[in-house]
Amino acid sequence: MTLAVAGDQVHLRRATADDVPALVALLADDDLGARRETEEHLGPYRLAYGLVDADPAHLLVAATVREALVGTLQLSFLPGLSRRGALRAQIEGVRVASSVRSRGVGAAMLGWAVDEARRRGCALVQLTTDTARGEALRFYERLGFVATHHGLKLQLPGPA
Amino acid sequence: MTLAVAGDQVHLRRATADDVPALVALLADDDLGARRETEEHLGPYRLAYGLVDADPAHLLVAATVREALVGTLQLSFLPGLSRRGALRAQIEGVRVASSVRSRGVGAAMLGWAVDEARRRGCALVQLTTDTARGEALRFYERLGFVATHHGLKLQLPGPA
Repeated sequence: MTLAVAGDQVHLRRATADDVPALVALLADDDLGARRETEEHLGPYRLAYGLVDADPAHLLVAATVREALVGTLQLSFLPGLSRRGALRAQIEGVRVASSVRSRGVGAAMLGWAVDEARRRGCALVQLTTDTARGEALRFYERLGFVATHHGLKLQLPGPA
Repeated sequence: MTLAVAGDQVHLRRATADDVPALVALLADDDLGARRETEEHLGPYRLAYGLVDADPAHLLVAATVREALVGTLQLSFLPGLSRRGALRAQIEGVRVASSVRSRGVGAAMLGWAVDEARRRGCALVQLTTDTARGEALRFYERLGFVATHHGLKLQLPGPA
């Protein structure tokens, strides 16, 4: 689908294997991401791409402006018994290229993701955002998300 | 697997379709759950159980003491590009029967879930907990989880 954002056409499509290097660069283009990602070894990212792409429960989205990748997010659909057997949509890995930030690309991606969740019959959309990203919290709240929960993580050590 | 908790044997196993009514009763046995769940119409729960059970990415756990269901959680495995293509384990729908609370059943379930995440090669385990559940936050922090994130939800209206 195509959306007009600040005069540019933003195109949203399913990410392809060829997008992986640009997606990793986008994930790393960020204060927190720079510490977590590495553009030198793409193997683990290609493996992860394969797992995501093979499973219809996950949709990895690429946002482009004039063919350039400027945004990404992953939308996953999770069944569960809670909340009367509600299907949940979960959003992970939201990034917008620093060169186009604050121009509506993020809102366009999120708006699309919420619409897609509704189309698939989800009862809620959920995501977590690092407490260090104050502006991200306000961005999601403007879109109607409510910060009702604490998001906790437990890092597991890698294989020795 | 079987764990001894406060003198009782707690047995953890995959939930079966026959557990659905007791699982729903457990989900509703809670201040927040009582408002969200209904034990009168099990159809949507049975449908959700079928989706969870059919997908190896999800594992719905039943904890029993002397054949009685006393706890549940859902463990899901989510691939994604972020964090060097990390596989994430996500925990949802954690409940312990009020009759056995504070006796170690929750810690036994969570400990098992973290071990299972490690066995499957996950780089992190994540969950969210309602900010209204102060004691739950402290419980997860004692287990090593760190509340680095805000958890946001957007409720979608049901079909008209």
